[in-house]
Amino acid sequence: MSKDKLQIIPIGGLGEFGMNCMAIRWDEDIFVIDAGLMFPESDLLGVDIVVPDITYLIENRSRIRGIVLTHGHEDHIGGLPWLLRELNVPVYATEFTLAYVEGKLEEHKLLDDAELIEIEPKSKFQLGPFTIEPLRVTHSLVDCVALAIETPVGIIIHTGDFKVDLSPPDDHAFDLASFAEYGKRGVLALLQDSTNVDRAGYTPSEWAVRPRLDEVFSRTQRRLFFSCFSSSIYRLRIALELAQKHGRKVAIVGRSMLESSEIAQDLGYLSIPGDLLVHPGQIKDYAPDEVCVLISGTQGEPMSALSRAAVDNHKHAKIERGDTVVLSSRVIPGNEKSIYRVIDHLCRREAHVIFDDGQSGLIHVSGHGSQEELRLMINLVRPKFFVPVHGDFRHLQKHARLAMDIGISENAYLLEDGDVLELDQTTATKNGKVAAGRVLLDSGASGNVVEDMIIRDRRHLSEDGLVIAIITINKLTGRVEGMPEFVTRGFVAGDLELGEQAKAIVGKTLEESNAEERADQVLIKEKIRVDLKRYIQKQTASRPFIMPIILEI
Amino acid sequence: MSKDKLQIIPIGGLGEFGMNCMAIRWDEDIFVIDAGLMFPESDLLGVDIVVPDITYLIENRSRIRGIVLTHGHEDHIGGLPWLLRELNVPVYATEFTLAYVEGKLEEHKLLDDAELIEIEPKSKFQLGPFTIEPLRVTHSLVDCVALAIETPVGIIIHTGDFKVDLSPPDDHAFDLASFAEYGKRGVLALLQDSTNVDRAGYTPSEWAVRPRLDEVFSRTQRRLFFSCFSSSIYRLRIALELAQKHGRKVAIVGRSMLESSEIAQDLGYLSIPGDLLVHPGQIKDYAPDEVCVLISGTQGEPMSALSRAAVDNHKHAKIERGDTVVLSSRVIPGNEKSIYRVIDHLCRREAHVIFDDGQSGLIHVSGHGSQEELRLMINLVRPKFFVPVHGDFRHLQKHARLAMDIGISENAYLLEDGDVLELDQTTATKNGKVAAGRVLLDSGASGNVVEDMIIRDRRHLSEDGLVIAIITINKLTGRVEGMPEFVTRGFVAGDLELGEQAKAIVGKTLEESNAEERADQVLIKEKIRVDLKRYIQKQTASRPFIMPIILEI
Repeated sequence: MSKDKLQIIPIGGLGEFGMNCMAIRWDEDIFVIDAGLMFPESDLLGVDIVVPDITYLIENRSRIRGIVLTHGHEDHIGGLPWLLRELNVPVYATEFTLAYVEGKLEEHKLLDDAELIEIEPKSKFQLGPFTIEPLRVTHSLVDCVALAIETPVGIIIHTGDFKVDLSPPDDHAFDLASFAEYGKRGVLALLQDSTNVDRAGYTPSEWAVRPRLDEVFSRTQRRLFFSCFSSSIYRLRIALELAQKHGRKVAIVGRSMLESSEIAQDLGYLSIPGDLLVHPGQIKDYAPDEVCVLISGTQGEPMSALSRAAVDNHKHAKIERGDTVVLSSRVIPGNEKSIYRVIDHLCRREAHVIFDDGQSGLIHVSGHGSQEELRLMINLVRPKFFVPVHGDFRHLQKHARLAMDIGISENAYLLEDGDVLELDQTTATKNGKVAAGRVLLDSGASGNVVEDMIIRDRRHLSEDGLVIAIITINKLTGRVEGMPEFVTRGFVAGDLELGEQAKAIVGKTLEESNAEERADQVLIKEKIRVDLKRYIQKQTASRPFIMPIILEI
Repeated sequence: MSKDKLQIIPIGGLGEFGMNCMAIRWDEDIFVIDAGLMFPESDLLGVDIVVPDITYLIENRSRIRGIVLTHGHEDHIGGLPWLLRELNVPVYATEFTLAYVEGKLEEHKLLDDAELIEIEPKSKFQLGPFTIEPLRVTHSLVDCVALAIETPVGIIIHTGDFKVDLSPPDDHAFDLASFAEYGKRGVLALLQDSTNVDRAGYTPSEWAVRPRLDEVFSRTQRRLFFSCFSSSIYRLRIALELAQKHGRKVAIVGRSMLESSEIAQDLGYLSIPGDLLVHPGQIKDYAPDEVCVLISGTQGEPMSALSRAAVDNHKHAKIERGDTVVLSSRVIPGNEKSIYRVIDHLCRREAHVIFDDGQSGLIHVSGHGSQEELRLMINLVRPKFFVPVHGDFRHLQKHARLAMDIGISENAYLLEDGDVLELDQTTATKNGKVAAGRVLLDSGASGNVVEDMIIRDRRHLSEDGLVIAIITINKLTGRVEGMPEFVTRGFVAGDLELGEQAKAIVGKTLEESNAEERADQVLIKEKIRVDLKRYIQKQTASRPFIMPIILEI
């Protein structure tokens, strides 16, 4: 590496959406911005999450001064347990982000050993040669920051995820003034979120969904089920406020929704009147027009509360004819089939389903800035160099062009994971590449059940092995025909031990599922996978990939 | 079954998009409308296409008088080889549809035995007790018809796929008058396409894309690659016309595009001046601004010409910096990742990519009628009963509501595959269910290479077996680490014979792929699957499911 050069090294998130992670290096000091995960493409069976390959960070273990998190979304913090297990370095984040991090580290039994340091907007802190000032930005989540980093060669600004919400529901305003001030002082490089570079104009405020949701609440005659991303604290706030306004008690169903609302309440981002909340078990005690259920599972996740309620298999959340279900979120590309599957189940129950189909009015807004906000930031910060971050290659490329068209910056650099950009006070040059890539992890059941996270790099597949369970179901009767069969490979316990007991496990899973669940292949495969996995791990302490295949006759 | 009742029995396409197929029965006579296929969800590895379970038709073999096709799209004719192999009955279709059918049956070596009968709009024909009049409709494909069916209890109209295009590029007008006339005579039931029931207003004409495409042609300085669905004859017509206008020769690349354009030329739907077309091998002989390449692969199909060109692995189609690539089609949900993968490859080559991102102007229009067109048809036909067809349950449900809100029909019936609707002159009743479901087929390589279609019902998996090929690739070097390993199950040839030779096959496939292809998992897996499959079939005459798994180190 060159001496007296600042290095910007994306480890993840440049060339894909998700698993955001970036190293900033000066000589013998490195700090890391974010440690995110990505959800896998559906053809990676047996894999729950994807995180960046951190070989470079591990090789430079002794140089790493800390990890600074911009906000608490999974694509920015979800890889933290995996990273901290390899590199136990201090973690810097705002109060709300730390609350999410604590929960996550506790699940992975890493909390006791972790050094978590709370940061605040406008309070500078030092990491080696870097002076870092967090700057308040707005996003779909609360307590988010950008980072202004003073380095020996100049100031670098990393936006994190942001939109310019001029009326955020929590009155924590976007700190336009500080960005402008840095712009006046002179900024060497701006690293900016590319997510919505395809969208013209401005992204609406988080408040913008309230009128349409108010209308939905006022029109709904029977039960109202409201689903959104569980981290959408602003959205939960609006739903709670509307429930109170329209005389409905609120039950919160689904672990992630419950945890998220508790954290938000503790930290003052949600203030819920004492008598508004009821226990899910009480839903049945209220008239249908007196209750609103906040429920997780807006992306059709097979094990989520909403997915289960949609096939009439949730203890407390019963969805009946004439009930209304609002999915206040977007349909994330790749999730269409799961989401529409759930919607079809809901329609069969004759529920009214309101989702983001382009016809339902504004029931969701993006958390990422559109083109005008990207231009606004560049106009405020006036960077000498521009580096687009967070996106597929085409987004980064489009964003670089958008930036250069403004005519403020001298040059834009298209980096992908592993690329090294070297800067001094006057120049920036791409110089070489470090190890980078994707690592697949098996985090236990997807959905809400979280077990220990197992590091499941693909290279370990042949060590822990592969179990394929072949189940034959009669499509007409929904019954299992014959016994399940198992194909194993490199699996220590061998075929023999996966005999009668494992068959019985699969049989039990099928028995305990209703006909609708059995007919829903994605759902039933996930249930079988989770149950078999738990059994195999208990019996053999081995963690093979498990791949159920359903044959319908 | 009840006597003196007409039965309407959806075999496929009601409860999903695709695999459209419907039986109409009176006493001892049945005829079938359409025989479509569906493309599988991505979690059905090793499966190429999905067709409806035709057990009911097979059981009633002797009663079936024929199959009538509404138009030539795969979701209406793609299951025909599979159906005809089981039931060799006469096939009725318009000239253009028959041309597609002939090609398809020839590939499957079924053409010689097939009885194909050409029908024409406004020419009635008889099938048992049914008098059928095809009525001209407009769609994204040419030569499409709806069917007006005189039955002993009254007239049934099945719309097929349609939109009301008031200025179709081929001057074959939508036959509004005939629909109105049937409406005056009295229609017992209307079976109408639900595809676009979510869209308000009217769907634009096929002509509507011309202004924006004209602009793209006039602005493009270098090579222009134009991709659309190969069956989009109207789109090809517009592209050819614009190429001529802007002084570009046209090369057609990709087998499906070539076949489709030849059929359209033969039947007079495309008239191409003799000197406009050049052979793909000549592309290099023309200056970049003198050539336009019509290329197949608009959905990012891994083996398509465009996918290969995007990674610089197509003999004739070289995409270079500054070239323009137009994807004049929609992004079909489920295909996002494949499509964006191709777009990313194109962006890396610094090509300008114009696709349907909501920002690129009108470069594609739907072939299906929006809400106002659905209402228009109901107003023309004035059916006593209404049955929505073609769609997920939620579309059918919404369509039934839309129809009832007009206040013309007495009742709407929500049928799903296998449901039996019985009608007499005054009543309609859902009565029972016949066998229905999905059958998975392995049609050989997806993309352009078509081998014999193999009937691969899931129940046969355990007979023909399963081969999992595990390949370890070093992510940094792109090299294969160690030898591929095979896991087999119920595969007659056994582990032994899948030894060195099969390993060599996989090695060869990898060697012949460039680094970019090897880094593209979906692409490389498909290549390995196709090559291994060809080898295994040749060696063993066995046709196992083949599932490549790539491990990256």
